[in-house]
Amino acid sequence: MKKNLLLTIKYDGTGLFGWQRQPGKPTVQGLLEQAFSTVCKKTVRLHGCSRTDAGVHAYGQRASLFEEMGIPTDRLARVMNNRLSADQRGKRSVGPIEIIDVKEMSDGFHARFDAKGKKYIYKIRNTERPDLFQRNYCYSIGEFLDLDAMNRAGQLLEGTHDFQCFQASGGTERETTVRTIYSLGVSKRDENLTIEVVGDGFLYNMVRIITGTLVEVGQGRMQPRQIPEVIEAGDRKNAGHTAPPQGLYLAEIYYTEEELEHGRKTQLG
Amino acid sequence: MKKNLLLTIKYDGTGLFGWQRQPGKPTVQGLLEQAFSTVCKKTVRLHGCSRTDAGVHAYGQRASLFEEMGIPTDRLARVMNNRLSADQRGKRSVGPIEIIDVKEMSDGFHARFDAKGKKYIYKIRNTERPDLFQRNYCYSIGEFLDLDAMNRAGQLLEGTHDFQCFQASGGTERETTVRTIYSLGVSKRDENLTIEVVGDGFLYNMVRIITGTLVEVGQGRMQPRQIPEVIEAGDRKNAGHTAPPQGLYLAEIYYTEEELEHGRKTQLG
Repeated sequence: MKKNLLLTIKYDGTGLFGWQRQPGKPTVQGLLEQAFSTVCKKTVRLHGCSRTDAGVHAYGQRASLFEEMGIPTDRLARVMNNRLSADQRGKRSVGPIEIIDVKEMSDGFHARFDAKGKKYIYKIRNTERPDLFQRNYCYSIGEFLDLDAMNRAGQLLEGTHDFQCFQASGGTERETTVRTIYSLGVSKRDENLTIEVVGDGFLYNMVRIITGTLVEVGQGRMQPRQIPEVIEAGDRKNAGHTAPPQGLYLAEIYYTEEELEHGRKTQLG
Repeated sequence: MKKNLLLTIKYDGTGLFGWQRQPGKPTVQGLLEQAFSTVCKKTVRLHGCSRTDAGVHAYGQRASLFEEMGIPTDRLARVMNNRLSADQRGKRSVGPIEIIDVKEMSDGFHARFDAKGKKYIYKIRNTERPDLFQRNYCYSIGEFLDLDAMNRAGQLLEGTHDFQCFQASGGTERETTVRTIYSLGVSKRDENLTIEVVGDGFLYNMVRIITGTLVEVGQGRMQPRQIPEVIEAGDRKNAGHTAPPQGLYLAEIYYTEEELEHGRKTQLG
């Protein structure tokens, strides 16, 4: 009997070409579908929740599949992770992708269409000398960043707005560019700044453009009070630069109001 | 006029094929020589101190070169790092290799032959669930490790011994397998164990075999008191397994007694 399964997936996006399957290139969806297809001995297709870009990481990407598996659900993650490691780096190593949870859902469930909200984290290292070992895992900024100003700007982004100024071209055509940001906070521990943002959905590159804008606010090149004008004008040119992909982590995806509420209140970084 | 230059080099060994130049493969020596040769417009050769294996990292590898540079010594690191980044990942990114210091030495100096000692660090994560993002930067061990037993075993390795039991085949033929370990300590912070070892020199894979042996002591599979017998027997079979390369960091190289003395007394991890 076919089951509708919801996967929670963690990945290190370094060296991968993003989520979406592409011929001849290692992508998260591609590698996962290949592993499932090998195990199921037929072509298996995954429906991912977010199409993360090349270099972007995930703590909790979600994807659903509707298949007859032949493996008990509680053993599936282990079997698939062994398969994934073998495909990726030889039997005993850990690869860049791991399935951390598998849950059976009702038949109509879809990982993307049923998402009520998401949390992204963006990691910045604010230190004069970038750390070589962190180069694929954060955005390194030498100039001092004013945390307080960044938080004031972040608060002005919260709420329901037309975020077209924070959208890059090249993404999927959307019906509307109105989105709701439930919470946006910036915290600092030693030289590490973490931006956590929860919203009902995000436009193409939206979190990276928000980050670039907050960085420019932190550097004093923009003022927090300019944020409402930037939103109002609706022009990409008025927002800040697009922060690089390697600092971005898809942290959590919420399917119920309770999960969303909990995610808004819980700081991960 | 030719200058004898000593470089201090940091690198992330992930994805590189070790120090030594190899045709058609990215290695630290190969990428550095290529960058120097481009800048100097002639073939430049480096003399490295340690030939680290594929996947092994360095905070302070050293290499010397004797060349006419045409660039002031105090500007050389910056010029070369820009060149290296451009070669590696496009102009604005940071690559896996960085020259962190350049010093002029007297003409007879050689980075390998004049080394008085070295410090290696080996990083272990002692936690039930390995962290995907740390997979290329430490050795992950789920079983509890007894820090105290590991330190008692480590102390029995200190001093001057014939370490042939801790030597892998495949390295350069050495005149003698007698080496002196000046200090060997294991420390723990949260779930991270760090082994720091200072010696006058190390045989092929010696630190990784010492680590494998200490891990087996930590797991209770070997007793600290067996260490002298293992050394005495001089048989590779009696020592522990070879720990994987990705936990190993070439930390410091000492050229004077003062540097060596300071290195022995200073804990980095």
